[in-house]
Amino acid sequence: MISTFAQNVSQWFQGLQAEIIEGLEELDEQEKFQRDKWERAAGGGGLTCILQNGAVIEKGGVNFSAVHGPMPEKILNALKLEKSNFFATGVSIVLHPQNPLVPIIHMNVRYFEMDNGTWWFGGGIDLTPHYIFEEDARFFHEALKNTCDKTDTAYYPKFKKWADDYFYIPHRKETRGIGGIFFDRLSGSEEERKRHWNFVQNVGKTFLPTYLFLANKHKNDSFTKDQKLWQELRRGRYVEFNLVYDKGTKFGLDTDGRIESILMSMPPEVKWQYNIVPKENSPEAKTQNFLKKEIDWV
Amino acid sequence: MISTFAQNVSQWFQGLQAEIIEGLEELDEQEKFQRDKWERAAGGGGLTCILQNGAVIEKGGVNFSAVHGPMPEKILNALKLEKSNFFATGVSIVLHPQNPLVPIIHMNVRYFEMDNGTWWFGGGIDLTPHYIFEEDARFFHEALKNTCDKTDTAYYPKFKKWADDYFYIPHRKETRGIGGIFFDRLSGSEEERKRHWNFVQNVGKTFLPTYLFLANKHKNDSFTKDQKLWQELRRGRYVEFNLVYDKGTKFGLDTDGRIESILMSMPPEVKWQYNIVPKENSPEAKTQNFLKKEIDWV
Repeated sequence: MISTFAQNVSQWFQGLQAEIIEGLEELDEQEKFQRDKWERAAGGGGLTCILQNGAVIEKGGVNFSAVHGPMPEKILNALKLEKSNFFATGVSIVLHPQNPLVPIIHMNVRYFEMDNGTWWFGGGIDLTPHYIFEEDARFFHEALKNTCDKTDTAYYPKFKKWADDYFYIPHRKETRGIGGIFFDRLSGSEEERKRHWNFVQNVGKTFLPTYLFLANKHKNDSFTKDQKLWQELRRGRYVEFNLVYDKGTKFGLDTDGRIESILMSMPPEVKWQYNIVPKENSPEAKTQNFLKKEIDWV
Repeated sequence: MISTFAQNVSQWFQGLQAEIIEGLEELDEQEKFQRDKWERAAGGGGLTCILQNGAVIEKGGVNFSAVHGPMPEKILNALKLEKSNFFATGVSIVLHPQNPLVPIIHMNVRYFEMDNGTWWFGGGIDLTPHYIFEEDARFFHEALKNTCDKTDTAYYPKFKKWADDYFYIPHRKETRGIGGIFFDRLSGSEEERKRHWNFVQNVGKTFLPTYLFLANKHKNDSFTKDQKLWQELRRGRYVEFNLVYDKGTKFGLDTDGRIESILMSMPPEVKWQYNIVPKENSPEAKTQNFLKKEIDWV
């Protein structure tokens, strides 16, 4: 029922999770990930790894899952698919740092297939700085562009736009952060499957060095109480996006997924204050001005 | 275009807002409400009143609005209505107290009408204690039952069940709090309009004395750091409900409403921690056990 290809993908994802966890524990030094293995009644399971109250990471999750079984009705209808068994595997990461000058990062890589031969890859990496530094944004987008270019020079512009459109908060009229790349339903011939898989592996491998560079650069930056407050307010927008718009979160909630794994993306401490408007020309105002689509960072 | 009846309702709602604000400022002593008058481009406007960092109220909003104009397409489709002008007026309240032993309270009363003669009332009051005290829950539900019984003894059981069903968080398999009453689309003959209006006024008048009783009872209770943490974790569930399920919030976001007025319901400070399970037989576990439907409090 589960193809050899899918099993290989899943195994590689598990290795990626282990590698990223090792790298993040080295970064944090103070705290380790708590590892929770879980099983899904209808088939499969996962390994949810959470680090809380670290020196660098205030709260972060690096989750792996490989689930299978009959496709839930709700998804069949939503995706307009016919009744079938499915297999889905992926790695999802959200890291909320202690230091407001270190950005929030999110990565997801996933593979999906059905009994009838349908399959696709999806994923992406995007960055949500509480304070946007232009050189960091350039560094981040260049890293993603390099990764994309290895497979296809058309990928970066296409997937960058996809991220701009996806990580948008209509009710705030702002993007969640500085975007990155986002892609879904990458499918095609057998040859293309290998090509996509190669690309997805490259995306997965881009995560750790890119984040370590940014985190190491800023983890020891001094910051003020006001900057910590701004971080907590920006986290509010992160919550608003994830609970109102994020399709992965919605999918998880709708299909009765393991709630503590899905909501690992929620920040550790969040503030909402009424009608906050940053002072003109402040770093906060500058950041706010960068929260829009179609900024060419590379 | 706007009926005399609707104008009277709206005026009464404004008076109710003023009265509640006065009562809450007396309760708080330390802080006053910030008053923001706003206008809606397509017609009407409102008065958003927010109190932050009070002695009793950590963050609270008491909002009035009266908006009119052509019905937005999105709502026409959602409510399956024909093209028409509409008028909608209401008062919405959410109060997040400083003291974790004081409950969160929410009230809404609203009236809606269209050019074609369609009209209805909606609203309700519900309570979200961070710690559930059975005698307080009884007091609260009895107050609502008394209010309902003045109009119709069938109302309390009906509207109490409606609140149980509405304020439910499927992904947590728990209710938001201990419920209260919830009703919508109360409509009918001219005679029934008067009857409903009388009922809605009674609901509006029930808010202040009921909340003042509970707030005064607990505002000086001593509490621990752990209880404050529990409050902040419970507020996370409040956020999850409001952003994922609350129809009023969704409606506001979908129709490009004034975002700072809609999201006044967001708590001032919220925490998410991974996989919190209260200790057996603790007050937190006891509270958790009460977060279910169909508890008969009266």
